[in-house]
Amino acid sequence: MKAAVLMEKQNIVIKEVPTPQIADDEVLIEVACIGVCGSDVHYYEHGRIGNYIVESPIILGHEVAGTVVAIGDKVSRVKVGDRVAIEPGVTCGKCDYCKQGRYNLCPKVEFMATPPYDGAWAEYVKSREDFLFVLPDELSFEDGALLEPLSVGVHALLRADVKPYQKVLITGLGPIGQLAAAAARLLGVHEIYGSDVVEFRRQLAKQQFFQDVCDPSQLADKVSEWTDGQGFDVIIESSGNDKAIASLPTQVKRGGKIVLVGLSANSQVSLNTNELVDREIDLYGVFRYANTYPKTMTLLKNNRIDLEPFITHRYSLDQIQDALNTAITQKDSSMKIMIYPKGY
Amino acid sequence: MKAAVLMEKQNIVIKEVPTPQIADDEVLIEVACIGVCGSDVHYYEHGRIGNYIVESPIILGHEVAGTVVAIGDKVSRVKVGDRVAIEPGVTCGKCDYCKQGRYNLCPKVEFMATPPYDGAWAEYVKSREDFLFVLPDELSFEDGALLEPLSVGVHALLRADVKPYQKVLITGLGPIGQLAAAAARLLGVHEIYGSDVVEFRRQLAKQQFFQDVCDPSQLADKVSEWTDGQGFDVIIESSGNDKAIASLPTQVKRGGKIVLVGLSANSQVSLNTNELVDREIDLYGVFRYANTYPKTMTLLKNNRIDLEPFITHRYSLDQIQDALNTAITQKDSSMKIMIYPKGY
Amino acid sequence: MKAAVLMEKQNIVIKEVPTPQIADDEVLIEVACIGVCGSDVHYYEHGRIGNYIVESPIILGHEVAGTVVAIGDKVSRVKVGDRVAIEPGVTCGKCDYCKQGRYNLCPKVEFMATPPYDGAWAEYVKSREDFLFVLPDELSFEDGALLEPLSVGVHALLRADVKPYQKVLITGLGPIGQLAAAAARLLGVHEIYGSDVVEFRRQLAKQQFFQDVCDPSQLADKVSEWTDGQGFDVIIESSGNDKAIASLPTQVKRGGKIVLVGLSANSQVSLNTNELVDREIDLYGVFRYANTYPKTMTLLKNNRIDLEPFITHRYSLDQIQDALNTAITQKDSSMKIMIYPKGY
Amino acid sequence: MKAAVLMEKQNIVIKEVPTPQIADDEVLIEVACIGVCGSDVHYYEHGRIGNYIVESPIILGHEVAGTVVAIGDKVSRVKVGDRVAIEPGVTCGKCDYCKQGRYNLCPKVEFMATPPYDGAWAEYVKSREDFLFVLPDELSFEDGALLEPLSVGVHALLRADVKPYQKVLITGLGPIGQLAAAAARLLGVHEIYGSDVVEFRRQLAKQQFFQDVCDPSQLADKVSEWTDGQGFDVIIESSGNDKAIASLPTQVKRGGKIVLVGLSANSQVSLNTNELVDREIDLYGVFRYANTYPKTMTLLKNNRIDLEPFITHRYSLDQIQDALNTAITQKDSSMKIMIYPKGY
Repeated sequence: MKAAVLMEKQNIVIKEVPTPQIADDEVLIEVACIGVCGSDVHYYEHGRIGNYIVESPIILGHEVAGTVVAIGDKVSRVKVGDRVAIEPGVTCGKCDYCKQGRYNLCPKVEFMATPPYDGAWAEYVKSREDFLFVLPDELSFEDGALLEPLSVGVHALLRADVKPYQKVLITGLGPIGQLAAAAARLLGVHEIYGSDVVEFRRQLAKQQFFQDVCDPSQLADKVSEWTDGQGFDVIIESSGNDKAIASLPTQVKRGGKIVLVGLSANSQVSLNTNELVDREIDLYGVFRYANTYPKTMTLLKNNRIDLEPFITHRYSLDQIQDALNTAITQKDSSMKIMIYPKGY
Repeated sequence: MKAAVLMEKQNIVIKEVPTPQIADDEVLIEVACIGVCGSDVHYYEHGRIGNYIVESPIILGHEVAGTVVAIGDKVSRVKVGDRVAIEPGVTCGKCDYCKQGRYNLCPKVEFMATPPYDGAWAEYVKSREDFLFVLPDELSFEDGALLEPLSVGVHALLRADVKPYQKVLITGLGPIGQLAAAAARLLGVHEIYGSDVVEFRRQLAKQQFFQDVCDPSQLADKVSEWTDGQGFDVIIESSGNDKAIASLPTQVKRGGKIVLVGLSANSQVSLNTNELVDREIDLYGVFRYANTYPKTMTLLKNNRIDLEPFITHRYSLDQIQDALNTAITQKDSSMKIMIYPKGY
Repeated sequence: MKAAVLMEKQNIVIKEVPTPQIADDEVLIEVACIGVCGSDVHYYEHGRIGNYIVESPIILGHEVAGTVVAIGDKVSRVKVGDRVAIEPGVTCGKCDYCKQGRYNLCPKVEFMATPPYDGAWAEYVKSREDFLFVLPDELSFEDGALLEPLSVGVHALLRADVKPYQKVLITGLGPIGQLAAAAARLLGVHEIYGSDVVEFRRQLAKQQFFQDVCDPSQLADKVSEWTDGQGFDVIIESSGNDKAIASLPTQVKRGGKIVLVGLSANSQVSLNTNELVDREIDLYGVFRYANTYPKTMTLLKNNRIDLEPFITHRYSLDQIQDALNTAITQKDSSMKIMIYPKGY
Repeated sequence: MKAAVLMEKQNIVIKEVPTPQIADDEVLIEVACIGVCGSDVHYYEHGRIGNYIVESPIILGHEVAGTVVAIGDKVSRVKVGDRVAIEPGVTCGKCDYCKQGRYNLCPKVEFMATPPYDGAWAEYVKSREDFLFVLPDELSFEDGALLEPLSVGVHALLRADVKPYQKVLITGLGPIGQLAAAAARLLGVHEIYGSDVVEFRRQLAKQQFFQDVCDPSQLADKVSEWTDGQGFDVIIESSGNDKAIASLPTQVKRGGKIVLVGLSANSQVSLNTNELVDREIDLYGVFRYANTYPKTMTLLKNNRIDLEPFITHRYSLDQIQDALNTAITQKDSSMKIMIYPKGY
């Protein structure tokens, strides 16, 4: 099959690779569409993310939906022809974390496009059946692929136990932040506000699920205005910007909740921890997600919100280099970039 | 009545002041004993803590137990002669925080010995009846006074939803840290470890509720040894030391919980926020406590642990200057210092 | 002022009574509209509900909104002229239940129209200020009065920790059941199903927030069809019908939640408790509500759902006898009946 | 190997059967000791429990500890010679319940000694490695076998989120009730009360973890005495007696929690559901347990409580008929009966 293989950093090629072989409990899926994630771009540019290092050629991409083309002997959950979304991290099912329902913390997880595990910028990809979710008719393949970044938002908001009557601030309005707002809306929240330095992102946000947005330089004043001086019930931090992180404790309500989604470029970030204490704030880190696919599919099906406006660019697999270039150079005009191995 | 009045920073005098007048729902208590808290010492030395400033003479002290000597017309909860512990923060009972059970966040709280509200380094003190708790026979006045710092630990541990089968680390082994260990023990926890720079504190800790302790310089290695490389389920940070705070994210288990109790001397503290994200950690600020007095009294009564070893010094009210000097100069040999206005 | 006074069972008269005197922390409200609750009708018909007995003349009515006409000296939360909803249970603020945020369980609560406390079928009513909530412009007085029965649904659903992606069944489609569906919708839920013996109620339900409804005789089959044989995530039982209650354990999903809102006419009700065990079900009783008014006002304001269709009859205060007759005799065509002391 | 095989109801024989063959991820264990559970006795006497029917010969027994004698090729969790406790329900790890941490509700669970799955009244038994837990040196094989019934209590108490400062009532003082008290003690609870009709059981209870016990006929008065008229925070119902179940709602505190563990002999049980509503009570069914083995092992190791007094009879495998006879006929003098296939 044809795949986009990252040979080493900044060197990606389209080449023939063996189509994955499936085991008894695995399924082969023809990829319909697959998103470009910030982590894919980061591996391409830098050859690593933290301790995860690209040491041998790897296929990237993990936001994926497609059609089942073959199933292992013991597979009962899907059948050939099913349109499916793929949850990209296959966990052991046996460790303490898996047994307790926090399988996103499974130390043995094999996560697509995280070295050394291949992803899905390819014609075909395989998965264990329990990580496949049949798309209802109301959901497109693109919806299916977007379930992945949407899941990050859903997980972050559920970790904060967000309630529909609460006020939510999202800092950083890239794909994760934009889809976190969609997730908040799906979870019944209306009062969603945001901040980002990029005008294009703020514009898109205002057209979508945000009541209002601002540049981070104005945020302190705006928080006060938006919340009558109380601060937000929940903040989802998805910028990874140290300055944004540092100011969170003063933007959240007394007794409120902050969720860190974005990774900083630095290992040490300054934070006013005394404010966390004096105002009894909860701060949650979130790592990926668990048990979000079925929930999010149901929410998307029932609410019928349109995610298409977030997809600003579409490419074939052969155009992967163009897709990456767009992601790197056009932050002022691109949001989610989608790859279609079989065309679109 | 006689009271120790802080006239301005570093100037405390014993003088006659009017005995408090009680309203219909208030109670007058003859003080049996009252602890010296780090915050009392801080007000004495610096005349302020953060935004709380000593602008006029104030009576300090808020860890207090005594005997009811007079009750208001509508008081039904206690009667003259009752031995009581006093919860020192009187809240409004009507705001959103009070209504939701998080009354420690009540913006109208009147907290003893926090400017401008007087505390209880005096012969008598008054309180609203709903903040009085009759001591069972099994508890001494000293137990009653120690309910206050003990409550901080109980609240911190309940915020982290600690379970008896979990491993707890306490960083900083002053009175709050030592009593947090007692609180953990009362809540059924056995695996309690600690760190502090002061040898005297470590010794006391080992004699009491800690399985093992170490100097902070050795903590990274010790955490690995104590937890088989997994990290702690719950960490209670009570040192307020920036270096201690910075290293918490690597000392807690994946998916674990950190509780910040200690205030830093600095408004910005460095923290490895990426570790919070990657390891999906919860970090909770805690501010005082709520609903802890009855629970902690019950736990003390049922478990019959001995808190006396934590009281290293005892003074009369007239010796308040000596008490403060001891607190300031003898960190190597003092733990909880107790004042007895009526002698001991 | 003029009030409808229940002299004894089945004897209600419009008469002049003293306008309530307000204390320092109380407020006098001119009643704009006030609903007829099933409990009001029950007191009228039977002179008692369980242990609550009408032993002296009483003003009924507790679903009320109006305009502030006078405030006590210490009142700061509202001002004359404010349009307000009144939460009808005034609690002590000092007992363990109040302190822990479950003030609906306060043993000292004074609840409107529950003997011996007067309600608000009158021109004026008073309340302590902390139980008043200023209506935003978007909410009508009728919305304000309906906050009370709506709060029952909100509280029931929050007790069950309902999530927007879950399936909810409501048994019994009187005002409480209908408004529980509105509450579910406000909380983001879409998949709402119901059952009732009355055709009129089913019709109304289908026009409003229910995806489908059926007669209880068909419910077993319908549950299977509606949930693919899985059962519901959450059931809100508001019929008080013994047969409905008995069958709940087989209609809820394994690990699901049942909330009992409706009171049975009998003190002993048969239940398949083995199903509760084998399928590990949670069953929650709910008594009134706590902390629901601000949340529900926010939800109503943000979602802009229309509650008018639930108000089927409107009467002046002088027509109270007609209102009661309608409630008693026209179950086939009435839902919420509203009284307007100042006309409408 | 030798096994006790239930051929049909009331017909159990010791016979040679094939030693279990282990798969890659399975382990063969030499059984050291194994308890007789009420369900084993019920299958023996009646050939069925509810829908589970003994349709072909089956080996009973599921409370088991032993020594690893062989491991599959992919096993890494245990090694030959390890002393282990076996959690007897092997779950799929892939369904929604498993993924969410409630694997006790897995519809594909293969539970030992539940038809058609064999149990462990035999010389050897096999298990998938993730259901094996290496016993620390401090725990005996008997402790290991008792982890199973103890887990029922731990799970029940954790479902009720019991706290060490709460008062717990246990109705029914057979092995499950007795060990639920041990579980409560392990979880830090001191105020444990119980009721049972059998004098022997009450005596044993008083010698162990109960503060006081009574005959069910006196329970109403005793509850009032033991709790100052408030009722219990948590009740664990393990008698399965309809009369005991019926009276629970009046024995629990307002806002309290009832956990149903015992199965009734009848499919419909009378309950005062109005009390559940008026007093806002939670009632939880519990089915087996999940994630309890590691926690309970840690608690047993740290608390060093002695479970031996609960083992009243010991038999070899050849004496299985005697063991069953004892269980059936000597309820007045037996508690846990233990089988030792290799002698004791």
